[in-house]
Amino acid sequence: MKLYDLPPSPNARRVRIFIAEKGLEIPTIAVDMTKGENKRADYLAKNSLGKMPVLELDDGTCITESAAICRYLEEMHPEPPLLGRDPVERAQVEMWNRRMELEILLPLINVFSHTHEMWKGVLTQIPEWGEVCRENALTRLEWLDGEIAGREYIVNGTHTVADITLQCALVLGKAVGVRVPENLANVNAWFDRVAARPTARA
Amino acid sequence: MKLYDLPPSPNARRVRIFIAEKGLEIPTIAVDMTKGENKRADYLAKNSLGKMPVLELDDGTCITESAAICRYLEEMHPEPPLLGRDPVERAQVEMWNRRMELEILLPLINVFSHTHEMWKGVLTQIPEWGEVCRENALTRLEWLDGEIAGREYIVNGTHTVADITLQCALVLGKAVGVRVPENLANVNAWFDRVAARPTARA
Repeated sequence: MKLYDLPPSPNARRVRIFIAEKGLEIPTIAVDMTKGENKRADYLAKNSLGKMPVLELDDGTCITESAAICRYLEEMHPEPPLLGRDPVERAQVEMWNRRMELEILLPLINVFSHTHEMWKGVLTQIPEWGEVCRENALTRLEWLDGEIAGREYIVNGTHTVADITLQCALVLGKAVGVRVPENLANVNAWFDRVAARPTARA
Repeated sequence: MKLYDLPPSPNARRVRIFIAEKGLEIPTIAVDMTKGENKRADYLAKNSLGKMPVLELDDGTCITESAAICRYLEEMHPEPPLLGRDPVERAQVEMWNRRMELEILLPLINVFSHTHEMWKGVLTQIPEWGEVCRENALTRLEWLDGEIAGREYIVNGTHTVADITLQCALVLGKAVGVRVPENLANVNAWFDRVAARPTARA
């Protein structure tokens, strides 16, 4: 098994932290987008969309999409459970993971894609859309601060993939100038908690 | 158990078709956004984001996010399997479901949100972004046409939630003027196949 990785990508980081939380060691191969390695035929045969990460199994089967990779690893290595411990909790973890992804990570990726100079001339940038996404992410962080009041971690107080997704979203947020406002005490305390975990630098 | 529904929503439709494919009957309650019913305190207590669908369990637990609702229903009612039959296939279904969602459904939702007059004055519309998303969706449909060549359904030829997600995406596509180009024979044949299933009008 090996992981095709894009070190700075929030989606690849989600998988790396997930692997580290499971205590697994999976060899990683960094794919250099700046050299167009992800557009070469051998890589496109693994993921025809040319995206990272990809988990390649020993029989050559390739799994793309970070959430799908995490699901496979959870089934193969159930401990510690990061996707929930029973049907209701698994649904709640999926619900919160998707909220963290669609409501916070995705807008922050849009801020990056639509406003960062790295993508000038590469993507069609619409800075106005980037700014709307920045505001949307901040609005959702404020909503989240109320939601997680009194909880150590997002779902039932237990560390799950939903925490990993938000953690990676906020790391990206810092890089694009969207910081958690100081008055959001619950989100800030939560972030200090995940940042102190031994897997935070995975 | 009951489902809070938004009849025209592609996400709510995903869940309704999933329920119909399972042969389940779950009472639905239509939430009228035009009357602001989704912003009332009793509904916000079920989903603080004010979105549909929501599955309310008999003990009052509320599950939001269509994929999370489908996962819960799959665990409670495993037959027919719509999320995969073994760990590798479950990862492949998740991968393809997310590709259909993030690469095709989400851009089409953006076309709707950013260009349709229904949202004028309600959302910040950036028509230019809507047009980029329209092109992105069409590019991905062309990619998909090659990917599904020779397959009856998207994942290993078996009907799964990935088919349901794409089906609902293309129903929305028609409503916003993004039709599958005629030369994409595989996608068109696939759509005829899902549209002929007894659950298509769920």
